[in-house]
Amino acid sequence: MSATMEQVRNGVDTGTLFATLDAVKAQPELGIFQFRASNRWIDGSHNQSTIKDFYAAGGEDTSRAEAFKLDAGEPAILIGTDTGPNPAEYLLHALAACLTTSLVYVASARGVKLTRVESRLEGDMDVRGALGLSDEVRNGFDQIRVSFVVEGDAPSEKLHQLVERAMARSAVFDMVTNGVSVQVGATA
Amino acid sequence: MSATMEQVRNGVDTGTLFATLDAVKAQPELGIFQFRASNRWIDGSHNQSTIKDFYAAGGEDTSRAEAFKLDAGEPAILIGTDTGPNPAEYLLHALAACLTTSLVYVASARGVKLTRVESRLEGDMDVRGALGLSDEVRNGFDQIRVSFVVEGDAPSEKLHQLVERAMARSAVFDMVTNGVSVQVGATA
Repeated sequence: MSATMEQVRNGVDTGTLFATLDAVKAQPELGIFQFRASNRWIDGSHNQSTIKDFYAAGGEDTSRAEAFKLDAGEPAILIGTDTGPNPAEYLLHALAACLTTSLVYVASARGVKLTRVESRLEGDMDVRGALGLSDEVRNGFDQIRVSFVVEGDAPSEKLHQLVERAMARSAVFDMVTNGVSVQVGATA
Repeated sequence: MSATMEQVRNGVDTGTLFATLDAVKAQPELGIFQFRASNRWIDGSHNQSTIKDFYAAGGEDTSRAEAFKLDAGEPAILIGTDTGPNPAEYLLHALAACLTTSLVYVASARGVKLTRVESRLEGDMDVRGALGLSDEVRNGFDQIRVSFVVEGDAPSEKLHQLVERAMARSAVFDMVTNGVSVQVGATA
């Protein structure tokens, strides 16, 4: 029992984590995943995504009993009725969540017990781009700043290394900093 | 009353939309916005973002009475307990939401009445990157595919043009396809 208790660190079952790493190392095709979202326009800037099924490790994953529903919107100043965070805010959340989970998994694998991981993100946007008023500014954020506060049972230097390693391994940090090819098709 | 009714198209008040465009055109500094998210680690892959305040049009926006809370997680196969969509799924939602809102605003400005806007997004990921098992695959999606279904009171060609224009103006499509500079700092 004692061994089992110790293998759960920061809420991460490191036994399962290491077993997963070994399985994918032995059989690389198990690493092929596909994530999905379906979105439906409701009214004005209000739209909703449904997220449930995904492909993982050689088959369709069926572990989720219920779908997640996410509502997007815009505040009044962007001609919405605040039906949810706006899409750019969702992107900041995706980035924060991915860096944090990456950090927590790395810490768990390295034997660091964390007591606090918090972050604050800011993205600067000149909305003249997205509003079609200027071709000299981009549509998205000019820059995103992330400030972490990390506390745990390791020296400051080691905690800083966890942040570095999270940046080096985060899926969303990679996509947001390097960009991804997006193919768009339409039936209309 | 009739004029007022007609100016709301697809749930978008086009009078307010055009007034906003005129105001920012006349005073470009009103286009400077800053969006924010604060994230807090809870346990394992469960973390939560709080989204409320933002800077817009020359001052802090105070229109939101309540903060939005977003929970992230991972499914069992990625050593989580499914406390929310995972960060990569949130990125797909951000992209879907932004393209959809951009499309709806453009349609409203151009006098097209929409009856249906739906999209399905897929992102392919080889998780050996994010798991640190291979430096030959990237951490994020190799590619994202977006399939729209758009219906409204305009010919197919015009509806297709709305999709093109949404891609040309969406803030999140710009960021996801072109990347953004992300500065990360940490107190540890």
